[in-house]
Amino acid sequence: MGDVVGKPGVTAVRTLLPKLIARHSVDLVVANAENSEGGAGISPESAEALLASEVNLLTSGNHFWTKKQILPWVQDNPNLLLRPANYPKGAPGKGHTVIQTPDGRKLGVLNLEGRVNMKPLDNPFTVAPELVAELRKQTPCILVDMHCEATSEKNAMGAHLDGKVSAVVGTHTHVQTADERILPGGTAYITDVGMCGPLDSVIGMKKELSIERFITLRHVPYELAKNLVYLQGVIIDMDDKTGKARSIERIREHLPGT
Amino acid sequence: MGDVVGKPGVTAVRTLLPKLIARHSVDLVVANAENSEGGAGISPESAEALLASEVNLLTSGNHFWTKKQILPWVQDNPNLLLRPANYPKGAPGKGHTVIQTPDGRKLGVLNLEGRVNMKPLDNPFTVAPELVAELRKQTPCILVDMHCEATSEKNAMGAHLDGKVSAVVGTHTHVQTADERILPGGTAYITDVGMCGPLDSVIGMKKELSIERFITLRHVPYELAKNLVYLQGVIIDMDDKTGKARSIERIREHLPGT
Amino acid sequence: MGDVVGKPGVTAVRTLLPKLIARHSVDLVVANAENSEGGAGISPESAEALLASEVNLLTSGNHFWTKKQILPWVQDNPNLLLRPANYPKGAPGKGHTVIQTPDGRKLGVLNLEGRVNMKPLDNPFTVAPELVAELRKQTPCILVDMHCEATSEKNAMGAHLDGKVSAVVGTHTHVQTADERILPGGTAYITDVGMCGPLDSVIGMKKELSIERFITLRHVPYELAKNLVYLQGVIIDMDDKTGKARSIERIREHLPGT
Amino acid sequence: MGDVVGKPGVTAVRTLLPKLIARHSVDLVVANAENSEGGAGISPESAEALLASEVNLLTSGNHFWTKKQILPWVQDNPNLLLRPANYPKGAPGKGHTVIQTPDGRKLGVLNLEGRVNMKPLDNPFTVAPELVAELRKQTPCILVDMHCEATSEKNAMGAHLDGKVSAVVGTHTHVQTADERILPGGTAYITDVGMCGPLDSVIGMKKELSIERFITLRHVPYELAKNLVYLQGVIIDMDDKTGKARSIERIREHLPGT
Ligand SMILES: [Fe+2]
Ligand SMILES: [Fe+2]
Ligand SMILES: [Fe+2]
Ligand SMILES: [Fe+2]
Ligand SMILES: [Fe+2]
Ligand SMILES: [Fe+2]
Ligand SMILES: [Fe+2]
Ligand SMILES: [Fe+2]
Repeated sequence: MGDVVGKPGVTAVRTLLPKLIARHSVDLVVANAENSEGGAGISPESAEALLASEVNLLTSGNHFWTKKQILPWVQDNPNLLLRPANYPKGAPGKGHTVIQTPDGRKLGVLNLEGRVNMKPLDNPFTVAPELVAELRKQTPCILVDMHCEATSEKNAMGAHLDGKVSAVVGTHTHVQTADERILPGGTAYITDVGMCGPLDSVIGMKKELSIERFITLRHVPYELAKNLVYLQGVIIDMDDKTGKARSIERIREHLPGT
Repeated sequence: MGDVVGKPGVTAVRTLLPKLIARHSVDLVVANAENSEGGAGISPESAEALLASEVNLLTSGNHFWTKKQILPWVQDNPNLLLRPANYPKGAPGKGHTVIQTPDGRKLGVLNLEGRVNMKPLDNPFTVAPELVAELRKQTPCILVDMHCEATSEKNAMGAHLDGKVSAVVGTHTHVQTADERILPGGTAYITDVGMCGPLDSVIGMKKELSIERFITLRHVPYELAKNLVYLQGVIIDMDDKTGKARSIERIREHLPGT
Repeated sequence: MGDVVGKPGVTAVRTLLPKLIARHSVDLVVANAENSEGGAGISPESAEALLASEVNLLTSGNHFWTKKQILPWVQDNPNLLLRPANYPKGAPGKGHTVIQTPDGRKLGVLNLEGRVNMKPLDNPFTVAPELVAELRKQTPCILVDMHCEATSEKNAMGAHLDGKVSAVVGTHTHVQTADERILPGGTAYITDVGMCGPLDSVIGMKKELSIERFITLRHVPYELAKNLVYLQGVIIDMDDKTGKARSIERIREHLPGT
Repeated sequence: MGDVVGKPGVTAVRTLLPKLIARHSVDLVVANAENSEGGAGISPESAEALLASEVNLLTSGNHFWTKKQILPWVQDNPNLLLRPANYPKGAPGKGHTVIQTPDGRKLGVLNLEGRVNMKPLDNPFTVAPELVAELRKQTPCILVDMHCEATSEKNAMGAHLDGKVSAVVGTHTHVQTADERILPGGTAYITDVGMCGPLDSVIGMKKELSIERFITLRHVPYELAKNLVYLQGVIIDMDDKTGKARSIERIREHLPGT
């Protein structure tokens, strides 16, 4: 599931996820939590609310440490919330881990952040192959959350890891793309899975405030929007033995009453 | 139709568009041509090839004048190829026009370019309402091509013009989004219609070269990819009298043999 | 005088300026106040402290409205504190004014902000000639504060206005440049006059915190440095009749005890 | 010496450097050559012309590989031309070396490139201490060329390496700064040494073309300017035993006839 935005996003996950898991027999759930506290950043409370909603693992992105209270929490729980693996050495938390189903089937998860029009982190294109090789010692089933702005950088990471991981899914733009497919090497790919949050908005925030910002170029504080809340993400079916993806399906579920 | 990328894109349009027009009883066709010559820029040849393919009007974006040979052509043909309306005063060409069906029903078209992580053009959020008001003197049916990078800027332009135009459709990222909808005020909206070009690529270009660029940070010249060529765009049904949109439907057509 | 940085900068101005005025028979003093409140932004208090120090007019830049309390003050005092003239229409305050000596000799002042690696304001290269023409109706003596990052943009503005104004002086980088000169058309020019603030620092802020920021890429809150406080600026001699500059001299005065 | 810009810059070095060496008893000369071929990039010819002018070592920056013909040359001559040390692994050439006087006194030289508003290279703040430690095994006398845009990044690198190297000198902005000094730990520092090239210009290029670019936002090809050619740089005196700097003096020499 893509970037969970504030209370509306958390509520959508808590309400809609259990039915989705049942309907599609989902084994494991990964959600990007970088906007879960107030629209920017993560708090222990927002992380725990999501983990209590049958989410197995949280990933993040450029808003990983926007709320500082998450830093001690992530040091205590490095295998519950990932930060992008290509953050500078010494950054709290870690960028990859392995989760498993009750019957012991494993999924490696790698979180990356892009650099086009973003921070000058370590190069995700050199970091990724090393960590994928490490994860493959434990399982061929690997999911990569590529958190970035540019479609070119996401396309390129998909191609770069095609055949080496089960899936490369993009997050960060908050808009779901319609290009989900299996790449030639057997890797499921989508440029962005879309946010869990209010669609009647500007990427989750109140439209009027964003428009004011674009007109005046002044810093206008954002507020969360409320209407048309959706859970968005993808369901990926992968072969436990080979790690190849069999299918990738987009999910868009409306939260009733919004 | 979104950014037509090089020969593969032009071929897709020439081959697939006539059937689409017939199948959906399309009245008027607008295509973004900014990548039609070799993947970056427009030439008189690429413009004319598209216009010969039952395209009624071309729009463009940040690659408008990448190929200089288009400048005299656009000065002779300002109503066949738009450049973003918010370019500096004195720029060749124009940014809005009115096209019409054989039976005289009019469609105003406005081309804009965003500024987030792009050039510091005039503010599209102040330019747009003025030109929309001008177009509305002739017709309530208005299509806006918002060419830009950031999902926030496209979302905000949709909200800004909602109820004032028939449709705001995004271009530039080359990846089709899955968020097409009618906004509360009656405006059809999609963040990006996607390119007409090879999907087995990095936004139209050969994957290997793009990956090399991301790894080495060196300027590696791009080459067009060839496989999985698609025509991508949207079909919008609008009420001739009120200009309100009735529906917006995504189109993705595969070019056989690719 | 260049960007006055926090209390150390204000103290340097209050302590050193009177002697400078006396020693060099200075007629009028203009200071950039954009960092005068706590290192980022302006408050009514910091503005008034500078104006009480024999400064005749304040200019500003990208930090003009970082502290919101300045907005009502500037609306009451639009001729005491300028904001860049190329801000969006409707922005509070104004970007040019005329000040005068006790004996009635006038100096027009124009404040601009650049756009390279900064906000997409209106184009200063088209705004400037219009406002210069307006000011020239009152006086040929005109000072331009070009607040921006790139040396290319400052060089180009100097060349653009050469012969039309008495001086183009740059601010914003907080580092004084050694390229002061009279341009061929008679305009005094310097790329940056340098800040009024602590030199034993990273552009005014504590070195350790800035280094930590560059190493970790985390947001580390800045604190003002204290040591080696200097007043920096230029003294320009201009011909009252023609507005041509006769000389430009760099000033660097150390605040004793720092 | 700072960025040598095209033929005018090379001529200034060839003409003026021998007298400077004699007058100031200079032991070793380092020049940034990144703009020596036509204003952008380096060619074997421009590199060899500078090395024939009593320059001992060339450094570079973001234009290191703008002219591709330099790549085989630098692989043959890795100790004559440095590229920034924090380029991606596998980049041709190297980023640090040791040069020496005829009587065997050694100078370590480290070339770095910043990242603020530049490419996302490896972090110079983590790369630098490692390479400085390596150079210190051979000599305590170390010169760092910090090639970057932002004054904050250069200030911070000076503070970061203060006491560990003999000098941190900035290049890239093409404008000499007036802030040369010995930092508290004994390191000579200047934010930018300035270019060797025509000052009656926009950072070396013809003023009219640059102004046109800022007004129209179109790509206007640059041409080299010709007037007021200067050699700019600094002379640093360092203690051979401790590596501490004794003095840093700015140099600005006019090329007669320009
Ligand atoms: Fe997000
Ligand atoms: Fe994000
Ligand atoms: Fe495009
Ligand atoms: Fe584009
Ligand atoms: Fe400042
Ligand atoms: Fe500033
Ligand atoms: Fe450079
Ligand atoms: Fe340079």
